[in-house]
Amino acid sequence: MSHGGAVPSGGNGPGAGAPRVVIIGGGFGGLAAARALRGSPVAVTLVDRAPDHLFQPLLYQCATGILSEGQITAPLRKVLARHRNVEVVMAEVTGLDAGRREVIARRPLDAGEVRIGYDYLIVAAGVSQSYFGHEEFAPLAPGMKSIADALTIRRRVLGAFEMAETAASAGERQRWLTFALVGAGPTGVELAGQIRELATRTLGGEYRASRPEDTRVLLFDGGDAPLASFGRRLSGVAAASLRDLGVELHMRTRVTGIDRGEIQVRAADGSTRRHEAGVVLWTAGVAAPPVAAALARATGAATDEAGRIAVGDDLTIAGHPEIYVVGDVMSLRQLPGVAEVAMQSGWFAGRQVRRRVAGQRPARRFRYLDLGSAAYISRGRAVLSAGPVALSGFAGWVAWLFIHIAFLTGYRNRAGAILTWWLAFTRDSRRERAFTTGQVGYLADVYDRPPALAEGGAGVRRD
Amino acid sequence: MSHGGAVPSGGNGPGAGAPRVVIIGGGFGGLAAARALRGSPVAVTLVDRAPDHLFQPLLYQCATGILSEGQITAPLRKVLARHRNVEVVMAEVTGLDAGRREVIARRPLDAGEVRIGYDYLIVAAGVSQSYFGHEEFAPLAPGMKSIADALTIRRRVLGAFEMAETAASAGERQRWLTFALVGAGPTGVELAGQIRELATRTLGGEYRASRPEDTRVLLFDGGDAPLASFGRRLSGVAAASLRDLGVELHMRTRVTGIDRGEIQVRAADGSTRRHEAGVVLWTAGVAAPPVAAALARATGAATDEAGRIAVGDDLTIAGHPEIYVVGDVMSLRQLPGVAEVAMQSGWFAGRQVRRRVAGQRPARRFRYLDLGSAAYISRGRAVLSAGPVALSGFAGWVAWLFIHIAFLTGYRNRAGAILTWWLAFTRDSRRERAFTTGQVGYLADVYDRPPALAEGGAGVRRD
Repeated sequence: MSHGGAVPSGGNGPGAGAPRVVIIGGGFGGLAAARALRGSPVAVTLVDRAPDHLFQPLLYQCATGILSEGQITAPLRKVLARHRNVEVVMAEVTGLDAGRREVIARRPLDAGEVRIGYDYLIVAAGVSQSYFGHEEFAPLAPGMKSIADALTIRRRVLGAFEMAETAASAGERQRWLTFALVGAGPTGVELAGQIRELATRTLGGEYRASRPEDTRVLLFDGGDAPLASFGRRLSGVAAASLRDLGVELHMRTRVTGIDRGEIQVRAADGSTRRHEAGVVLWTAGVAAPPVAAALARATGAATDEAGRIAVGDDLTIAGHPEIYVVGDVMSLRQLPGVAEVAMQSGWFAGRQVRRRVAGQRPARRFRYLDLGSAAYISRGRAVLSAGPVALSGFAGWVAWLFIHIAFLTGYRNRAGAILTWWLAFTRDSRRERAFTTGQVGYLADVYDRPPALAEGGAGVRRD
Repeated sequence: MSHGGAVPSGGNGPGAGAPRVVIIGGGFGGLAAARALRGSPVAVTLVDRAPDHLFQPLLYQCATGILSEGQITAPLRKVLARHRNVEVVMAEVTGLDAGRREVIARRPLDAGEVRIGYDYLIVAAGVSQSYFGHEEFAPLAPGMKSIADALTIRRRVLGAFEMAETAASAGERQRWLTFALVGAGPTGVELAGQIRELATRTLGGEYRASRPEDTRVLLFDGGDAPLASFGRRLSGVAAASLRDLGVELHMRTRVTGIDRGEIQVRAADGSTRRHEAGVVLWTAGVAAPPVAAALARATGAATDEAGRIAVGDDLTIAGHPEIYVVGDVMSLRQLPGVAEVAMQSGWFAGRQVRRRVAGQRPARRFRYLDLGSAAYISRGRAVLSAGPVALSGFAGWVAWLFIHIAFLTGYRNRAGAILTWWLAFTRDSRRERAFTTGQVGYLADVYDRPPALAEGGAGVRRD
C-alpha cells in the first residue's frame, strides 16, 4: 500500500502502470466483478454513493422489524479489505467522459468533483423504483430499494398502528389498519405476509383501543397472479397461502391515483374503485438510475423502455468494448432483475477483463444459469423454483432459509440472522421496531407541509 | 379490556370511575412511575412522542456502530403490555390546562389535538441538548439525546473517514480525521474513547489512501478534568486512560465558535485558538424541553437556569399537589441528571399516587440513594464510583458490563448485547455501520443549502 500522494493513484497492489478498472456500484453485480478480479494485475476502483453493500432480498425484514440495517449490509471496504488491488470511493457518479475515458463523480458533503480514469469500465448501478410516470405517488407510497426506504416503511407501518390507537372514530381506526401494497412480485408478497404476521402475531396484547388483528392488507397487481415469474403452479400456491394468511388479492388491477388515506384503482373490466388505506407501499416497477442516461448520452448506447442499457452477448456496449454493463441496469434477453443475474453477469464481466488483461481470449457470450428463485410468504411457508424443482410450504421454507443464510454477506451477519430468525420464528419476537427519527414528526414526510400546532385537527377528547 | 368507544376512556383494568394518572414521557422516570402503579386501581395513560423507551446510557454505542437502535430501545407498548391499567399514547405534549386538569397533545401525522384528563400528573419529559444560547451550533455539532442523533453521529463519524480517503491534500485529509468533542461528561468521554477505538482497531486495513490510525480526537470542557462528577481520583484515572488511548484533553476551555471544518475555543487564561476538525460533536449542556415551559406557565411553577421545574421535597409543584415532576426535568437539590435519579424519582412519584389512591399517607420526602455511576473508557477500562467504592481499569470495566446488562430493558436486548459485546471485544467487530440515509447526500444536513452538481468544488483528479 502506498500513502504517498495526496490523491490515491489506484496503484496499490499492482504496478503504477497497471490497467485501471472502474466499477460503478457495490451491489451484487459490482461486488462479483471486483471479486472476479482478485489477484489480477489491474488497479480496481469501486465507486458507490453508499458505503455499504446491501443484501436487498432481506430488505423487507428490516422494514418489518426483524433484522437491523447492520444485519443486511456490509461495509464495502470491509468486504474488500483483503482485495489489495481494489480501492473503494464513496461518491455519486454523475457523468462519463467516454472520449477521455473518465468517470465523473461528486463527493459527499462538499459536492467536490472527482474524475476517475479507466481502461475498462463495469457499470453495475442497479435500478430505482419506477412509478410509471406518476412521480407524485412517490412521497405517498414509498418504494423498497434502499435502507432509507426500509426505515421509512418501518415508521409508516408501525406508526399506522399508533394512529389507529388514538383514532377519533371506528372508520378512521380501520383506515389506519388498512395497508395497500402495489406490486405482487417477491418484495410485495413478502411485505404483505410480514405485515399480516406483525399484526396478528407480534403486536397482540399491546394495544388497548384498537385490535391489530383487524389489520387488512390489500395487494394490487396488474398481472393475473402474485409471483407470476415463478410459474403457474407456485404462483397458485402463493396466492392460496396469501389468502390463508388474510391478504386480500386484487389482481388484474391498476392504480390510477393515490391520495392521503386512499388509493384509486381500475380493474381489467374498466370498473374503478376507491379503497381507504392509511399506508400505501409501492414495489411495482423499476427505472434505470440517472447514471444510465448519462452513459447512454456519452456512448450512444441504446436503452429499453425502463432506461436500462442494451448490451451485446458479451455484455459490452456497441462500439465500446471497454465498457461492460451488468445486473439490473443491463438490458439483455429479458433476463429478470434478480440478485443471481447480477452476480453472474458481474462475475462474467470481471473474468472477461481479467482474461483480456492476461492476453487471453475473452468469452463470446454470457450464459445465465438460472439457479431459481425463492420468496418467503409466512413463517413455515415459502415458494422456491429452481429449474425442474418447485418447492412450496415447509420444504420451500427450509430451502429459503438455507439459501439466504448461505448468501448473506459476512460471517457475522449469517450468525446474527440465524439467531434472530430463531427468536422471530419461535417467539414472534421482532427486536428492530425502533423509529429512527424517534419523534412525533416521523410521518411528516407524507405531508406537503409540516404539521403545525395551530392547525390541530378535529380535536379528539380523551377524558 | 374494552374496545367499545371510538376514543379509549382510559378505563381499562380498573373501573370506569378510577382515578386517572397521566405520565408524560416513557424514559427511565416515566417507565418507573408506570411500573410503581402496577395493579393499583387507577387508569394510567403514558404519553410519549416516540413509541420506544430508549436506554440512553448506551446511545454512544449505537452512534459508533456496536449496537443497533433496536438493541437499545424497547417498544413502550411491549414493555407495558402486561400492565393492564396502562395505555400508551404516541403524541407530543404541547400544553397543559391546569384548571381543567387536561394535558394537551398532538398526534403524529395529522397534528390532530388530543386532550387527556388527569387526576394525577407525573411529568417525566427529560431534557434536550443545550447549546448555551448558540443554537446556530446545533446543525454543525449534533447532540446525543435521541436515536436520530445517534444515527446522525454515526453517519458523520463514518462519513469523515470516507471524505479523508478522497481528500485533495494531506491537510484536508487530516482535517477529516480530526474529531472535536465538546463536553467531557460520561457521554463525551465514552464517544471520545469509541472514536479512537473505531479508528485504531476496527477500520485498520480498509483504507488505501488514508490511515485511520492518524485520527485525532480533541475533547474540550470548561471544567478542570473529565468526569469531574466521579471525584478527583477517578477523574484523574479517566484522564490518564484517555491520554493513553490517544485522546487530546483540552480542559478549562470554552467553545466560542463553530464553522464548517473548524472549532474556535478560548482557554481559561483568555487565549484563543482555532482547531481544524472535520466533525464536531456536542454533549455539553442540557435544557428543559418546551413542555416544561408550558407547565411552568400553566401552574406558576419556578424553573432553574436550564428551565427545569422546581419541586418540593415530595416532588410536587408548589400549589399543585396533584402534579409530580421527576427525572432530568426536575430541579431538586442539585441531583445529577442520571438514569438512577430518574428511576428512583419516577418510582417514588408512582408510589405516592398509589398510596394516596389507597387512602394511605404519602411519604413526606424523596430520598435519593446514590448507587453510583460508571463510564466506559475503552475495551477493558471503565471507571465506577459507588459511595465509598471506586473502581477503575479492568475491575471497573467488569462492573460496568454487569450493571449495563442487568439494567438493559428486555431479555432479548440483554442476550443480544452480551453476544454483540463479546464479538466487539474479542474481534473488534462493529456490525452496525450502515448509513441509514444510504446515499451521497447523507451529510447535506451540515449544509445551509443542499450540495448542487453545478457547484462542484476544486475538482480532484484521480487518474
